[in-house]
Amino acid sequence: MPVLTYPLEKPLPVPGFRVGSASCGVKAADLRGKRQDLTLIVADVPAQAAAVFTQNSFRAACVDLGEQTVREHATDIRAIVANAGNANAGVGEMERVWSQQLIDLGAGAAGVESHQVLSASTGVIGEPFPIERIQETIGEASESLHENNWVAAAEAIRTTDTFAKYTSRQFDVVGKTYTITGVSKGSGMIHPNMATMLGFIATDAPISAQKLQSILSKVTDVSFNSISVDGDTSTNDTVYLLSSGLGLGYDELEDTSAFEQALEEVAIELAQLIVRDGEGVTKFVTIEVSGAENEAQARDLGRTIAVSPLVKTAFAGSDANWGRIIMAVGNSGSFIQPDKVCIKADDVLILKDGNLHPDYTDEMGMNVFKNKSFTLTIDIGLGDAKATVWTGDLTHEYITINAEYRS
Amino acid sequence: MPVLTYPLEKPLPVPGFRVGSASCGVKAADLRGKRQDLTLIVADVPAQAAAVFTQNSFRAACVDLGEQTVREHATDIRAIVANAGNANAGVGEMERVWSQQLIDLGAGAAGVESHQVLSASTGVIGEPFPIERIQETIGEASESLHENNWVAAAEAIRTTDTFAKYTSRQFDVVGKTYTITGVSKGSGMIHPNMATMLGFIATDAPISAQKLQSILSKVTDVSFNSISVDGDTSTNDTVYLLSSGLGLGYDELEDTSAFEQALEEVAIELAQLIVRDGEGVTKFVTIEVSGAENEAQARDLGRTIAVSPLVKTAFAGSDANWGRIIMAVGNSGSFIQPDKVCIKADDVLILKDGNLHPDYTDEMGMNVFKNKSFTLTIDIGLGDAKATVWTGDLTHEYITINAEYRS
Repeated sequence: MPVLTYPLEKPLPVPGFRVGSASCGVKAADLRGKRQDLTLIVADVPAQAAAVFTQNSFRAACVDLGEQTVREHATDIRAIVANAGNANAGVGEMERVWSQQLIDLGAGAAGVESHQVLSASTGVIGEPFPIERIQETIGEASESLHENNWVAAAEAIRTTDTFAKYTSRQFDVVGKTYTITGVSKGSGMIHPNMATMLGFIATDAPISAQKLQSILSKVTDVSFNSISVDGDTSTNDTVYLLSSGLGLGYDELEDTSAFEQALEEVAIELAQLIVRDGEGVTKFVTIEVSGAENEAQARDLGRTIAVSPLVKTAFAGSDANWGRIIMAVGNSGSFIQPDKVCIKADDVLILKDGNLHPDYTDEMGMNVFKNKSFTLTIDIGLGDAKATVWTGDLTHEYITINAEYRS
Repeated sequence: MPVLTYPLEKPLPVPGFRVGSASCGVKAADLRGKRQDLTLIVADVPAQAAAVFTQNSFRAACVDLGEQTVREHATDIRAIVANAGNANAGVGEMERVWSQQLIDLGAGAAGVESHQVLSASTGVIGEPFPIERIQETIGEASESLHENNWVAAAEAIRTTDTFAKYTSRQFDVVGKTYTITGVSKGSGMIHPNMATMLGFIATDAPISAQKLQSILSKVTDVSFNSISVDGDTSTNDTVYLLSSGLGLGYDELEDTSAFEQALEEVAIELAQLIVRDGEGVTKFVTIEVSGAENEAQARDLGRTIAVSPLVKTAFAGSDANWGRIIMAVGNSGSFIQPDKVCIKADDVLILKDGNLHPDYTDEMGMNVFKNKSFTLTIDIGLGDAKATVWTGDLTHEYITINAEYRS
């Protein structure tokens, strides 16, 4: 029961990009034809590329290869090929071979060179990768390539996701309108440092790869790295950002601030959708930390609260258990002066300068915590820096998904 | 359903100490007479004292007062008074007043001075502390003082604990036998850094306060700070260690190695009992990390695995999901070389040098993970240091306890 409280709008096409999908039966041969599990994003002109990857020490081969390709060919990328159903991770020496084969197949399907192709894989770890099933059916992805096919691309990277995740923004610079469209997948294992999470974002804004990379890194901090479902991060997490603008012959944008703003909105929405669809999540909670000495401190504190099982089960129980919240604040490893801490739930002031506010009643807190979405505000009174983190609750459904099925 | 797979032996009396308990109805007046919730440990001679406390920034007043008393009067402690049912934490300005009143009442009941008394409180956070109920009934604790009353002391500090936790060890030095007896409580919110956990340990080994403190700090690292139930730590965690030996006129021990060994056994057993009784725990898992560059790295890595919700739900589901284990290893923040990592479950080799062992089958893993107790061994192949961490699984019962009841 995801906490998707608004309808998603159909994603917009991005000049220079076409998107296709295929049903390969990667997870199990008998799923072929039943659900899409391969995405192909093709740039019709050389695209500028940027990427961010998992910080887990165990990295899948697709991450190593993707990082290398972006490092060496960031101004000449033509395609992303991605599959769901098998992460091609933890499988030993064949991993890199299979990963390269996926790239080669993607290059063939896109009609480009292998060194122009980025790949990503998501799904179960430690099972042999059925490259032959992809080989047999990747043709479907070429055949379905279309500029309006972004929903299919979002569908085909789902694993335990219950809905496809996508969003678009447009912005104007000097009278010209540019588009950003992105898709993502996530669900379990989501945590600040790029959890089992994929995000593919395309734009026609004419910006060089180098600048794209610095903007993407900054935006990732306040979006994909500011969400948490269960505190775990995976071997395969990847965000790719491609831009067709220069390839289409547009003049390079000098002022990228409008792009940066729109990209941040896209990335935050794609990230929030992952939390809203987190395994077993029934509440969507925004944690705003302010009064920190610097942004990193604020974000770390928000994350500590966001991953605390006691806080997350209190969310699940609609229990405004502020004792657990101060416990988590005190636990953050950060220097905290308890008598400067203020805590609010939506507009309800709970703790003021470290003490329970005299007007506060349990009922007031419960009236906030019972909602499907609410905001916790923690001011630690030490400085001016702030950060926002989004998280969900910890429910029986999470245990059922993760204790009873192998994911 | 705790994982207590062996019967606890009756704790041994310790020369110089008597123990009593009372039923005050701290949590709710109508519980008075129904369950014990106040413990009084009296040293009949001045005791040497050592203590370790929570590392949470939000510390209850009893922790501040206890720390101060140990700092100023470590060679002249005569009593510990502790209550369950109300943590006297997060309640504002009265907290320190009530905490001092509990100490004063303990001093009166023990017939000693207030500055000779250490206190501890555990239970719900943020509720007014019913000091008058303790005042009315603490006399029961004085009346029940007896050297053989340690089980009652263990009973009276329980909160959500399903069984009372105690153990004893004896050791000989130069033909004389000394005793160590300890009690503990824990259950939820248990993590390396002194979670909502109390431990009171008494010995007649003649050792000075200063030496006791350095031994206790060392032993705490490999015992109370090496367990994890849910990764959260509390405002009130405290371990007190008292020694009557010098007060009884014994000659000071020159060689404390036998004492240290016995204390470590006591502390490890008291800590393990907390995990075995962790909220909702159905499995007791020992995580041995070896091949680390130093002990801190080994312990941090063990803790990262021990708190991972995905690993803990795999334990719950008896799923030897080694993909989640390598994910957690890679997540530890430590430098890891994947191709040096070996993982075993009991005697079953799963991962060798970063690759799945060719002889390994899922069935072999499941045959280990289905047991109520098993050992995961992670060798990261970088050095000679090692550490052991104990943890439980994450189950529906944990969610039920924490989402549906306020603790």
